Amino acid sequence: MNIRTSERIELVDITQEVKSEIHKSGIDNGICVVSTSHTTTAIILNENETGLRHDILDFLEKLIPPLAGYQHDRIDNNADAHLKAIILGSSETIPVTGGELVLGTWQRIFFVELDGPRQRTVNIAKIKKVQS
Amino acid sequence: MNIRTSERIELVDITQEVKSEIHKSGIDNGICVVSTSHTTTAIILNENETGLRHDILDFLEKLIPPLAGYQHDRIDNNADAHLKAIILGSSETIPVTGGELVLGTWQRIFFVELDGPRQRTVNIAKIKKVQS
Amino acid sequence: MNIRTSERIELVDITQEVKSEIHKSGIDNGICVVSTSHTTTAIILNENETGLRHDILDFLEKLIPPLAGYQHDRIDNNADAHLKAIILGSSETIPVTGGELVLGTWQRIFFVELDGPRQRTVNIAKIKKVQS
Repeated sequence: MNIRTSERIELVDITQEVKSEIHKSGIDNGICVVSTSHTTTAIILNENETGLRHDILDFLEKLIPPLAGYQHDRIDNNADAHLKAIILGSSETIPVTGGELVLGTWQRIFFVELDGPRQRTVNIAKIKKVQS
Repeated sequence: MNIRTSERIELVDITQEVKSEIHKSGIDNGICVVSTSHTTTAIILNENETGLRHDILDFLEKLIPPLAGYQHDRIDNNADAHLKAIILGSSETIPVTGGELVLGTWQRIFFVELDGPRQRTVNIAKIKKVQS
Repeated sequence: MNIRTSERIELVDITQEVKSEIHKSGIDNGICVVSTSHTTTAIILNENETGLRHDILDFLEKLIPPLAGYQHDRIDNNADAHLKAIILGSSETIPVTGGELVLGTWQRIFFVELDGPRQRTVNIAKIKKVQS
């Protein structure tokens, strides 16, 4: 799945797209692994509320500010994006039951852009459960 | 699996419950995905030692203090719980071999309550390995 | 898979070893779960660049300094290693397509030693996708 991000750091809600992939796959029970192939992006699950989206990005920027004397910035000005990606993680695994993602009431799947804007790719692997 | 937490922030060791689920499932080889459906809780693997349990919660409270001017707190006083959940992650995947979880000597599975006390749900997905 | 680490904290690139395991397994499509059985180590995906490797370890040491008054240090001087492991996570799940790990151009798999040097074990679980 391709994503065109529009900001340097940004949360993109991809829940609907992942749900569609599950429906199209015809998988009934199993797991869905949502992962990123980039080292300056991440996948997280959380609530999609405007204030909270701001808090998440603000927290990351304060914890790991851009251009704070990192060695990697000598060759590429995005060491902060790599560090942010590492603490967030590059994948999330979600159970699938009865043909649907098992997500809580407030849970949404976010692609986290940390060094945009760019063209990005998200992988969605669907693994069917087989009977023991 | 249901959990009734008793504190605002708390580590609940659920290793035994997950092991029982694996035994009941009859799965021999594969993976076990332990995940939470809540946006203010997390799943981690680590050692269950009294001092360390204190250190983990203390670290989280200092890194992300409650009510520190978050925008999400205008509608719900738990932005800190969401941020803590995001850096810990909402699932852990554990290999299963010979009918048993592959856990190291000190590894225990913790459900992390970050906005309790509440009634919570943990998902345990068991995926059997099939031969190539 | 066994790893002999050589520093107290260290990033060990295990991408080639994981790729070899995938090739040997004959798995065509599915997922690969790389996990650690230790509570003072972690698994991450990111770029293997000398400056960035330094930045990652430096960030972890500043965020969670050793021997900073942790309760766990009364019985073992490595509370910082446990806390670092918890925020990094103990496993990563990578898709497998056409017999190959789906890794982006810059993505490498790192075993993160946080309390070495020691003899360590990494688990590599290969789960084949079955048709729906």
